[in-house]
Amino acid sequence: MNCWMNIAAESDFSIYNLPFGIFSYKGHDPRVGVAIGDSIIDLVLAHDAGVFHDIALPLEVLHTDTLNEFIRQGKSVTNAVRNRLQDGLTKENSKLHHIKDTFVKQAEATMHMPVEIGDYTDFYSSIEHATNVGKLFRDPENALLPNWKHLPVGYHGRASSIVLSGTPLHRPKGQMKPAEGNPVFGPCKLLDFELEMAFIVGKDTKLGHRVTTSEAKEYIFGMVLFNDWSARDIQKWEYVPLGPFLGKSFGSSISPWVVTMEALEYFKVAGPVQDPEVLEYLKYEGDYNYDVHLEVLIQPEGDEENTISKSNYKFMYWNQLQQLAHHTVNGCNLRIGDMMASGTISGKDEESYGSLLEITQAGKKTLQLKNGVERKFVQDQDTVIMKGYCEKDGRRIGFGEVRTKILPSID
Amino acid sequence: MNCWMNIAAESDFSIYNLPFGIFSYKGHDPRVGVAIGDSIIDLVLAHDAGVFHDIALPLEVLHTDTLNEFIRQGKSVTNAVRNRLQDGLTKENSKLHHIKDTFVKQAEATMHMPVEIGDYTDFYSSIEHATNVGKLFRDPENALLPNWKHLPVGYHGRASSIVLSGTPLHRPKGQMKPAEGNPVFGPCKLLDFELEMAFIVGKDTKLGHRVTTSEAKEYIFGMVLFNDWSARDIQKWEYVPLGPFLGKSFGSSISPWVVTMEALEYFKVAGPVQDPEVLEYLKYEGDYNYDVHLEVLIQPEGDEENTISKSNYKFMYWNQLQQLAHHTVNGCNLRIGDMMASGTISGKDEESYGSLLEITQAGKKTLQLKNGVERKFVQDQDTVIMKGYCEKDGRRIGFGEVRTKILPSID
Repeated sequence: MNCWMNIAAESDFSIYNLPFGIFSYKGHDPRVGVAIGDSIIDLVLAHDAGVFHDIALPLEVLHTDTLNEFIRQGKSVTNAVRNRLQDGLTKENSKLHHIKDTFVKQAEATMHMPVEIGDYTDFYSSIEHATNVGKLFRDPENALLPNWKHLPVGYHGRASSIVLSGTPLHRPKGQMKPAEGNPVFGPCKLLDFELEMAFIVGKDTKLGHRVTTSEAKEYIFGMVLFNDWSARDIQKWEYVPLGPFLGKSFGSSISPWVVTMEALEYFKVAGPVQDPEVLEYLKYEGDYNYDVHLEVLIQPEGDEENTISKSNYKFMYWNQLQQLAHHTVNGCNLRIGDMMASGTISGKDEESYGSLLEITQAGKKTLQLKNGVERKFVQDQDTVIMKGYCEKDGRRIGFGEVRTKILPSID
Repeated sequence: MNCWMNIAAESDFSIYNLPFGIFSYKGHDPRVGVAIGDSIIDLVLAHDAGVFHDIALPLEVLHTDTLNEFIRQGKSVTNAVRNRLQDGLTKENSKLHHIKDTFVKQAEATMHMPVEIGDYTDFYSSIEHATNVGKLFRDPENALLPNWKHLPVGYHGRASSIVLSGTPLHRPKGQMKPAEGNPVFGPCKLLDFELEMAFIVGKDTKLGHRVTTSEAKEYIFGMVLFNDWSARDIQKWEYVPLGPFLGKSFGSSISPWVVTMEALEYFKVAGPVQDPEVLEYLKYEGDYNYDVHLEVLIQPEGDEENTISKSNYKFMYWNQLQQLAHHTVNGCNLRIGDMMASGTISGKDEESYGSLLEITQAGKKTLQLKNGVERKFVQDQDTVIMKGYCEKDGRRIGFGEVRTKILPSID
């Protein structure tokens, strides 16, 4: 496909992508937009211009501050919108060309949270990460717990504190337990990121009903990058027996553009062989891993960006279909906008570890950055950036980035 | 105070209570109501009649299907409304007497979920319950984990599947691990209730900011009864290392009337002595336990109700101020409508255990019910009922009940 717009070859937002987001600009209310190159198509203005005249798409689901009601129209509508835009970007004589002056430069827009998140679930689906953490937090000889290969372990996370890329977070305070003596209170000392991706639920389910792996695809709208910030010292003391709580709930960060599963379809690959064989309800057909190149960068205040990890979403042991089928197998209902994160995405090599906990072996090793700077964990005023893109046969689509600066604790 | 209405002495909804809820009747939209005796005061009609003429209370926060926007008006408004009603119920010449014909019989009304729940947190704040479960699930010699007396352990739960009293739930299916051999899939065999109470957040907080124990009171609107349904066999296999997930998320049940903290004020009592001393941020002044008599009943299909537990909310080791201060100490933001449950409320005696897990010692003992019926865990078609009330010096207020029938798994 050739786009009549001038789009940089390395752009995340090629004509093959067309992700949805919520943006505002020049005093206009938030609304649904689609990213293309360095621009945004304002879908409210496109609707006004009749671009969607034969698609059953009420204007009010575009002129609003979350994607939830747009997603609720169903894939037949949201795919028709995306296909119409794709078509209109290849044909100079389409209605889309005629409204090109209404396109907004991304640099002039403000992005907003793309969805209202009902519930947020975090999985733990990278075998390398689960093994690494098990070695560090528990028993090096039995790093992987007995259930891990039988089900996609997950837990409920905090939805209220999920923030958009660009929103700074304060270093959390909390209770920590030194190796010797009583617990103490203060700012977390072992602040860490977790490189994750998250999918967004695209269809409600009914309480008591399950979604099978073969149906699951219809229930997933799209994906974002996800930084599951973690305070390792708070987490380590609090997490038994009911799981992570304040070590995570001070904030998680997401990228603003929701890349659809249809855009990602072209980049599917086979997942790892699952041995032992999984129970029937977790079996699936076809390839459902995705080849997404991921990168983590850290930028100390006033300094350069340093790439500190390169991983890939294709490493996941458990895929989305399995995560979703497992999540609903007990009858738990899903709502449009629910977010399900992957868990930290680590690869086999040290260069592909998705957290500082793993990269520095819980602080035993020092990470050497440019200009003589060193890190074991994240320091105040550091910015952590995550990026992700797919590339195959000259076709490239990307997620943009999730970028978060850490500010000192509030007194 | 004497009410001009005829209210039964054993009514939960005396003039001292006046809880808020959402109800509908005779084809009318859902709206805010206040329970009194066997009736409901329709606050939309009371507003129309000028009862709140000098209170800054927009009609639209009453004529809606959740209490969230009503609560958002702040305690100065919600308390003024409650005080006005209390006053109007004692004076025959008030506007309230003049609209008594608009009162709705509870038997003719349909109750709805009282709030839209943003996030739901479950604590684990009964020392007796934590000890009992620790013995059964882990190590009888070290039942209480090292962190338990230093912080109010809690975890994030699933908000989407919290349902109102009267809503039946299907027995969850899931993965379970027999003592020997591979995990299996099927309907849960060890279905249990957990007797809890939950408070509802009444004021938003800002991400990065904490609420101290001395401020916490202003952030709590009121309370409901809470049944934290638990599938023990699913939970036991899945819960390491990240906590309960599908063993809980198939459903939790709440009572419909939100009893305000102001109504409960009169029933405050001292909590247990906390030893070891807690960290500074968890210290508080005054008494913040509540003497609420709790009862669990089980009713097999077509049979009688059987009281199987009598407990009390005053047994809590960690109180609400500590729970809320702990929850926000890392900067986690709260939203109006967030629900925070206590964890299972067990007392010292077997008769006061708040779950079948504890009552039957994980099925080792059999519970003898009336008419020769026996139970170890909850069976299909059983109804579980929880009730709660406070009584002191002839003043009685109550929570009504949370009642849930268990239906078979859906195929």
